[in-house]
Amino acid sequence: MLKNGRKEKPSVRRSEYLEECFFAPPESFGEGCLTIIGSEAKHIAVVVRRRPGDTIGVLDGRGGRYTIELTECSPDSIRGQIIKKEEFSPRTPELWLAVGIIRSTRMDLLVEKCIELGAQVIVPVCVKRSLSPKGVSDSRLARWRRISIGAMTQSGRVFLPTVWRPISLEELFLAAGKDATFLLAHPSGKSMHSLKVRDLSRTRIVACVGPEGDFTPGELESLIKHDALPVSLGQARLRAETAAMAILDRLDFISEQMESASV
Amino acid sequence: MLKNGRKEKPSVRRSEYLEECFFAPPESFGEGCLTIIGSEAKHIAVVVRRRPGDTIGVLDGRGGRYTIELTECSPDSIRGQIIKKEEFSPRTPELWLAVGIIRSTRMDLLVEKCIELGAQVIVPVCVKRSLSPKGVSDSRLARWRRISIGAMTQSGRVFLPTVWRPISLEELFLAAGKDATFLLAHPSGKSMHSLKVRDLSRTRIVACVGPEGDFTPGELESLIKHDALPVSLGQARLRAETAAMAILDRLDFISEQMESASV
Repeated sequence: MLKNGRKEKPSVRRSEYLEECFFAPPESFGEGCLTIIGSEAKHIAVVVRRRPGDTIGVLDGRGGRYTIELTECSPDSIRGQIIKKEEFSPRTPELWLAVGIIRSTRMDLLVEKCIELGAQVIVPVCVKRSLSPKGVSDSRLARWRRISIGAMTQSGRVFLPTVWRPISLEELFLAAGKDATFLLAHPSGKSMHSLKVRDLSRTRIVACVGPEGDFTPGELESLIKHDALPVSLGQARLRAETAAMAILDRLDFISEQMESASV
Repeated sequence: MLKNGRKEKPSVRRSEYLEECFFAPPESFGEGCLTIIGSEAKHIAVVVRRRPGDTIGVLDGRGGRYTIELTECSPDSIRGQIIKKEEFSPRTPELWLAVGIIRSTRMDLLVEKCIELGAQVIVPVCVKRSLSPKGVSDSRLARWRRISIGAMTQSGRVFLPTVWRPISLEELFLAAGKDATFLLAHPSGKSMHSLKVRDLSRTRIVACVGPEGDFTPGELESLIKHDALPVSLGQARLRAETAAMAILDRLDFISEQMESASV
């Protein structure tokens, strides 16, 4: 396993996924070159102290990963030449997390952790027992975008996940479209081991988690009518944000198994 | 499925696990009666507004779940009669999480979430790249105890998990004893699908997660020498606290599968 020919055990190496990347929005990229301004420039120049001549990895959040040789490094602006560009395809099925709006500190945490754990779209849903969508201001959406960027670069993903403005359940059904599997985190559901390959071979998977106090019986009925599959997350009673993390982690774990079975 | 005879679909009910319980340390229990003082009394009397005559569930954190009929309710003290006592056995294997000490806000979060997800013992480990154990003061340990109580009652567990004072890796090996399976969260590890029933049929499982910056090569070597099994948690690069949540969630999910297979 080790490149330098040392003995095989311990079979532990740092993975390629551990390479640190930075983020630059698409408008930062010019003809063969890159300019980063604002807080990310400060981060690169001051916090991780990269210097002209250094090579860094930069993501555009749309599937592009660039290798950049830095030519200029100041806390206000970073410039560099594009040495290499790689394009990645978005992962399928697309993974959405729809969650009743919860308190802001827990929602911030949910955004960070659920993106690390693979959510591509996070949809705050406005239901009877959720907090009011009025709490989701423009500044909060901007905050979630910053958290999303941090979680994307941290976790080594190449597409910038998005957090939507709050919508209703009915709007969620419309937005997700016909070719979606809805999963509903609920103690009465079946184990996620019972999910079939065909359940997860759709355009998107929408993992639904209720707010504190859960969905109302009417909302549950509406989800079931839209063919949502109730799935349990073990015997513990989980808070909304913990349930969201667990359902995403289990989906990742199941897809790992399905991929290895299909190889 | 629904008790009141409504139609079977939607097949979603509130589980027995959703019953709310309170916590009282063992010294609160007298001959057939209970006295709760301090913040939990205030919580019961003021926040959830229970009144004399109400019945509540109380956990002693050592496997006892009591049904109590309240006789006195003030913000300073709660008194009640024990109507019923149930004793539970601790879950086996015992589940430990050993984690390099990380920043305090993330460590607080880790304690809450990892207890919700099933950790029975959390061991902050003092390693090269962890924060100093000096940061783990008595007041922080007291804070973790409060968080543990909240996470225990929230998640419906009956044994109060403990968070230890920081120890070294060598002390961890001694404390865990001979009949333990060590798992090491590491990107180079195998999928946790490869774990065997015999790996998880021990007195305890110790899930080990490095601090920010990971274990050093020497520490990894030491873990491997002690037969730690490196396990991967998917392709994303996870922060320490997220990796801790993911490894516990996957262990719970695997044991769910093993239990259903053995039925």
